[in-house]
Formats: sequence, C-alpha cells, structure tokens
Amino acid sequence: MPQSSIEQHNISLRLRGMGSFHIGGKVVELTDGELRQVQLTRTGRPAALDPNGSYVVGQMYVQYFLPDPAAQKFPLLFWHGGGLTGACWETTPDGRPGFRDIFLQAGWDVYVSDAVERGRAGFAPIPDVWDPPISQTIETVFERFRFGKCLPNGKTSHAREYAFNKIAFPMNSIEQFAAQMVPRWTQTDDLIIEAYLEELRKVGPGVVMAHSQGCVFALEAAARHPELVSALVLLEPAAISHFATSATEWPMPTLIVLGDLIEQNARWTRMREDIRNFAGNFPSVEIMSLPENGLSGNSHMLMMDTNSADVAKVIQAWLERLPV
Amino acid sequence: MPQSSIEQHNISLRLRGMGSFHIGGKVVELTDGELRQVQLTRTGRPAALDPNGSYVVGQMYVQYFLPDPAAQKFPLLFWHGGGLTGACWETTPDGRPGFRDIFLQAGWDVYVSDAVERGRAGFAPIPDVWDPPISQTIETVFERFRFGKCLPNGKTSHAREYAFNKIAFPMNSIEQFAAQMVPRWTQTDDLIIEAYLEELRKVGPGVVMAHSQGCVFALEAAARHPELVSALVLLEPAAISHFATSATEWPMPTLIVLGDLIEQNARWTRMREDIRNFAGNFPSVEIMSLPENGLSGNSHMLMMDTNSADVAKVIQAWLERLPV
Repeated sequence: MPQSSIEQHNISLRLRGMGSFHIGGKVVELTDGELRQVQLTRTGRPAALDPNGSYVVGQMYVQYFLPDPAAQKFPLLFWHGGGLTGACWETTPDGRPGFRDIFLQAGWDVYVSDAVERGRAGFAPIPDVWDPPISQTIETVFERFRFGKCLPNGKTSHAREYAFNKIAFPMNSIEQFAAQMVPRWTQTDDLIIEAYLEELRKVGPGVVMAHSQGCVFALEAAARHPELVSALVLLEPAAISHFATSATEWPMPTLIVLGDLIEQNARWTRMREDIRNFAGNFPSVEIMSLPENGLSGNSHMLMMDTNSADVAKVIQAWLERLPV
Repeated sequence: MPQSSIEQHNISLRLRGMGSFHIGGKVVELTDGELRQVQLTRTGRPAALDPNGSYVVGQMYVQYFLPDPAAQKFPLLFWHGGGLTGACWETTPDGRPGFRDIFLQAGWDVYVSDAVERGRAGFAPIPDVWDPPISQTIETVFERFRFGKCLPNGKTSHAREYAFNKIAFPMNSIEQFAAQMVPRWTQTDDLIIEAYLEELRKVGPGVVMAHSQGCVFALEAAARHPELVSALVLLEPAAISHFATSATEWPMPTLIVLGDLIEQNARWTRMREDIRNFAGNFPSVEIMSLPENGLSGNSHMLMMDTNSADVAKVIQAWLERLPV
C-alpha cells in the first residue's frame, strides 16, 4: 500500500482539555458458550478461555479535544458514516488536516466518536446482537461514494483512471482511505442511537455534524430529543430517518450538504429526492449543494476531498450565521 | 453502566502537530463470496452487497500528538496489549489523565496505535486470515490482570468486594474498563509485527513503550531491527518473545516494569521467572519491581491504577537517565 502521500501536517493548537471515554452500553452475561484452549500470544503459555461470563455490550467510544480558549457556545459532535470510524474526521487520506482539526481551530469543543461496534467501541460475542458483520469492497464504495461509475476488480492502484474526470476525492490515496474502513453490523441501530443520546445527555446540547449513515441517527436523535440538539449539519445523508419524515415540527437549524455528480448515480439521485421532500416540509432545513456554491467535483466523502478546507469554510460560515 | 466517575480532566497543552494514518497492510482480493441483499440503514433502501473484490488487510492505525516545543530526542510509541486498543493509554477508567497525556506533557512526540485488526485498524472478511476472534470476560481479566483471585459471574458491580485488599486498580470503574476491551485474533502476529516495523521505519528510531502482549511484539521488533528501537519500556510483558530469548546481544536500554501481587497468581509467578531469566542474560535489561520502588498494589493495568501518575514518574526518571 503506498505510504508516501501521508505526511504529518503541522498545526499550532493550544488545548485546555483532551481525553476519551466509553458511554452507553450495559453488562450482559453469556452462559452457553463452549470452553476453548487458546494461545494468547505466539510464544505465550496456552490458557483456557471460558467465554461464559460478563461483557459490556452496546457502548460507544468518544474522544474529545477542547481548544483554549473556547470560542463557541456549543460543543460540536462528529458522527461518522457506515463502514467508518471517527478516524474519518482526522487527517485526510492524502495527509491534510481533517474536519476535526479545522473546526478545533475555529474554537469548537470537538467530540469524535466511534459508534457502537465500530473501531474503539469494540464488539462482544453475544450471538443475538452480534450477527456476522458486513464489509464493503473498494470496488463497491468506488461506485456508492460516487468516485466513478465502476472500478474493475484488481484495479485499485489505477482507480484514478476509472474515476469521474472532475472528481475531487484524492483518488491516488484510495487504498489509504480503504485502510480505514471497518466492518459494520446491520441490526444494532437501536444500540447506536441509545449511545448517541447518552453522549448528547453528557456533553450536550450541541451541534451534531454527521455523515452518511450517521445522519440517520442524527435525524432520529434530533426528532426524539430536540432539547439536546442545537443545530444539525448533515453531510450527504444516506437516508432520511422515519422519525424525521413523520415529524410535525423541526425546531433546530439544519443544514444538509450535498456534493457533486449526484445525477451520475441512480441511488443518490433518489436519495436527493427524499432529502428535498424532507427539506420542503420545514423552513428550518436548508440544502446546500456544493456545486451551486462554487465547489466542484465533491464525492460522498466530502470531508476528505481535495477541497475539504473550502467545504469546511462554507459550513463554518453557515454555523456563524445561526441565531445562538 | 455507571458513568458518574468519568470526568473530563483538564490539561494545558500546546501542540505543533496532531493527526493519524494507517500503515502496513496490503490490498487483498476476495473471489469466492456469496452475493447478499442487505439493508444498510434501518430506513434506507435495500442494496445488493457483493463481498467479492478488494480489501485492505493487515493495516494498523496510528494517532499522533506532537507537543510544542518538542523536548525529547526520540518519539515515544505506545503499543497496547491483547484485547485492548490505543484507548488504554488515554483517560483512565476513573477519569484521570492517561500515560499519553502525562508523557506528552513531558515533551515526548507521542504515537498511539491500534494494532492490526484492533479498534480503528479495522478487520476484513478474508477467511484464512480472519478466523473468529476471541473475547475475554470481565471475570477472566479480573483474575488474569491480578485484580483479585476470582470474581463470581454476575458480580461485576461488586468487584471491589472480591478484589485484593491492596489493589490499586480503580475497581469501581471495572465496567468502564471492560467497555474498552475489544476482541482479538490469535493468528495475526506476523501481520501485527510487520505493521509495527513499518511504523518504526516511518517515525523511528524511537522509544517503544509496550504493555502485555504488545511487549512480545516490541521484543521481536527490537531483536530483529535494533537500529529502529532506541529504548524499550515493557510494562508487564505477557511473554518473552523467542526472538529475545535466543538473542546473543541486546544493545538497547530496556526497562521491564512489574506490578504488585505477582505471587498471588501462578501464571504471573511463572512469567516473572521467564522475565528474570531474560534480564539475567543482558546488562542492558533492567527489571523495575514497583513494590520494591515504594509503589503498592499495582495490577497488570498499571497505567490505569490509581497511582499511575507515580508509575509514569519513575519511568520518566529512568528515561531521563538514558545516555542519549
């Protein structure tokens, strides 16, 4: 995997706090597992492993960075999309500062989470919750994330040649991007939303900036507990939660950011219709189309695209216009 | 799960850089998987999922923090133990600053990694590499990590009553600790060591501070590539790598830190013998027994124990005595 494109970027940052915690979840006891003998390290002594006993299940990982001085009234919570972790907000695949650092430098208290069973949240061997997860191939996300129409198998190192001409994703770093993808489970939505609500209760009310699948949880959280969500920034929602489509009022300012090339992808064209229908119901919901704002070629991963600093700038400008 | 013990700790820190990257691993193609229909979000449209195609396998996640000004000659690389991620070096389960922050404040460039297939490193559905992982129960680690002799099933919220009297682990936070445990694979040692060597090649030579299973990898890396490792700090090694036991010379200063209550646990008593045999072979290897240094009650998780700041202090003092 090519590494040369990853450079340590320099920032200058003063923090008044930094740390992490796990939140949500509960202790669950497993009672019907079989005893196994396992060698826990290559040269270690074999040990009996009894799977029966207690595990923490359904927890989420949160890492936070608090700039000094704090310059914003509310904290900013980053909620990643499906198949990803909080790492997606950090350094971009081609080595530029991610949204975490850009918004930190704008004075936001930043909370980056790994949703339940993703990344540092961990997962536990409780059979009815933890059915086998799914993984997406590089070829699948190439099409789904609107990098291009189709990437033939075995061509990941030539992805640039198969991508849309105007694509802003750093296509030469697609393998570095794929390295941060993680499996995901499909039946853990209720656990995830409970953990996110716990996070909001602990550090909110706050601004939630969510991406893709994370937007579905953000819409549900906002609909169920509007008192915990001061504003929503939804980057390319993967769906509009039924909690949102069936809402009768929508009190919090909500910005939905859509990238470019949507008409190149039938699934995203339908998604945009759903999004427009939702936004049409409430004056508090605004759609920001990046190509209509002078930003060209944005993929589904707009926080990683080569113009991501400009994307952040228009979002920050919207946040600054909020009446708070 | 009790949350009240987690408090955001305050620090004051100036950084000249911060970021993350994935390193190691390679693109692998899966060709014999079955097509599935999956609903990727609860309210999303169903989608066909073809598991065949390319995945990145064997990569590791690295997050770094560079203090301003840099005060140490070498970077400090934290390598976690089995069943854990880099989160173990962050905030302690009871909400105090972790080793990451303590050593950052001592001026070290700090690199915290999640080893291959742990946490934000991700894992991929390649059957011959990714056999089902193992998880350890709270009751298992209670005994293995020397919190006490035995915790009966269903008693995790009363762990304090079953722990050793003098234990320094924050026992009321054992569920918060268990929340950060992740499954681990047992056949990925070669992938892990390759990724660690890649990390050392990229940011080293450096000081490696490793814990438990991480020490086994650190010993192998140091034996195979002494030019990349300027010093080793091994916290409670889970085993002595055969690369170390068969070494004929051991050039780098090496500190092995052992906690308390070792004679209460047959496995750790044997482990200490192995460690003493290794240290006896080389004048560069020093064992630091914490109870013989006035620190009492330390468990296997000595970076989380209530006296962890004092443990860090004696390690930092040892590092300052190095002839570099």
